[in-house]
Amino acid sequence: MSASSNLSEFDAAAAALFERYRREDVPRPSSWNASLDLLLAHRSHRHYLSQNLPSGALETIIAAAQSASTSSNLQVWSVVAIEDVQRKIRLADLAGGQQHVRDCPLLLVWLCDLARLELIGKEKGRDAAALSYLELFMTGVVDAALAAQNAAIALESLGLGCCYIGAMRNKPEDVAKELNLPEKVFAVFGMTVGVPDPSASAAVKPRLGQKAVLHREHYRWDEAQREAVETLDVKFKDFQKEQALPEQGWVRQVLSRVRGVDAMSGRDRLREALVALGFELR
Amino acid sequence: MSASSNLSEFDAAAAALFERYRREDVPRPSSWNASLDLLLAHRSHRHYLSQNLPSGALETIIAAAQSASTSSNLQVWSVVAIEDVQRKIRLADLAGGQQHVRDCPLLLVWLCDLARLELIGKEKGRDAAALSYLELFMTGVVDAALAAQNAAIALESLGLGCCYIGAMRNKPEDVAKELNLPEKVFAVFGMTVGVPDPSASAAVKPRLGQKAVLHREHYRWDEAQREAVETLDVKFKDFQKEQALPEQGWVRQVLSRVRGVDAMSGRDRLREALVALGFELR
Repeated sequence: MSASSNLSEFDAAAAALFERYRREDVPRPSSWNASLDLLLAHRSHRHYLSQNLPSGALETIIAAAQSASTSSNLQVWSVVAIEDVQRKIRLADLAGGQQHVRDCPLLLVWLCDLARLELIGKEKGRDAAALSYLELFMTGVVDAALAAQNAAIALESLGLGCCYIGAMRNKPEDVAKELNLPEKVFAVFGMTVGVPDPSASAAVKPRLGQKAVLHREHYRWDEAQREAVETLDVKFKDFQKEQALPEQGWVRQVLSRVRGVDAMSGRDRLREALVALGFELR
Repeated sequence: MSASSNLSEFDAAAAALFERYRREDVPRPSSWNASLDLLLAHRSHRHYLSQNLPSGALETIIAAAQSASTSSNLQVWSVVAIEDVQRKIRLADLAGGQQHVRDCPLLLVWLCDLARLELIGKEKGRDAAALSYLELFMTGVVDAALAAQNAAIALESLGLGCCYIGAMRNKPEDVAKELNLPEKVFAVFGMTVGVPDPSASAAVKPRLGQKAVLHREHYRWDEAQREAVETLDVKFKDFQKEQALPEQGWVRQVLSRVRGVDAMSGRDRLREALVALGFELR
């Protein structure tokens, strides 16, 4: 590799790291590549052009999703791809009325799917008692999340954009009914997908300095973590201002989000909803 | 792009898809790139050379992890990086005695971390009642999984390899004690990291055909899903044989894994352990 390409690689790394953290103290990488550029540049897109995905793109995205690790190769996840306009409108209404759920060309709903193994067990006459435990529910949630994140990276590599929709958990039983989910299948989150509208703003959101999330040998709640929190609080206020969003710091925003049941959009009854959907969560 | 590079791109895509599914009916992608190659080529590595990661690699991996989406920017996850030999041995003993947990140059333990927001709330004198709910626990689990999967992709882009360690959930309280975790922090899974030993086998594991996991408009338990299961059962037996592993099909293996409490390595008491760790899971 030539000196000039090394230099431009270094510039790309430094720029990407600064954009993510808005601070100068992130250790310099010893090497860099296009996939790291892709990962660091992630941002949520909520505005899409009114055009469908290229032919074959969905299947390529799903192949990437299935290439993620899955606990003991159980593959306890599935995904529903929704393009029907009326169904997108109904799901948007169930998920807090977000406009991009209505408008996106493709809505993916990622499922914790214990039904497949339960149905296979029944057909083979074999017990599958572990499926009643919280552990297997969590395995399905993690499997779905790893798959979805691979899908996000894959679709971004194809020039598409996405936004995770946690509000798909606001009314789990209604979502299950809309998607014809059998017992022991749960919609963990949605994901809107499309070609990003270049005229709409979508910026890289700043994160906590590494000392808040990266612990060495054991966990520490220390001055370094507090400093990262206080610094992000200020940087996040700048970000909100730049984006013409309410000028509030990170601390105020996140504490408002976890203050209590009134801020949970119905998700305080998640446990009850899961039991109704056939998860015993023993 | 020249005709010949298009041809080689097509060849790469076809080869990667065939290796992942061992079947010919996956729709052809209309475009392909190096990041898709990376995602599709994922395999778990359990044997590493005895050399440390390059300087700065860990921080680059964490920057990728922090670039993943996080619900409402809550960032309710953390990670502990472990290089101390004795601590790796103790954690390996807690996680089913797996040799690669002892031997890996770097062990990452990914955490659902609700303590940060709880501690910030306390310091600011603000209520954070939502943290007692199953919903926020799940948010932390999903946040940790999205971050970890970005880390996996980043480290693979740097020529490193990894293996997820679900057995880190076998004895949650002991793991929490070893890592000095405060209340409301839970080790979701571990991840061994290192330079893969080229002399050790690590193959791409075959997955269910897409018709099992990709549903259009709504969920279906139909002949196409059954066919995908039966086909993988056969292909997986071939894979096991090639890898000199016990010659069993996928169905037998996964049903054995979920048959009941005796196959759960103590994880049947996950709920009890989480309550002991300060998660009310309301």
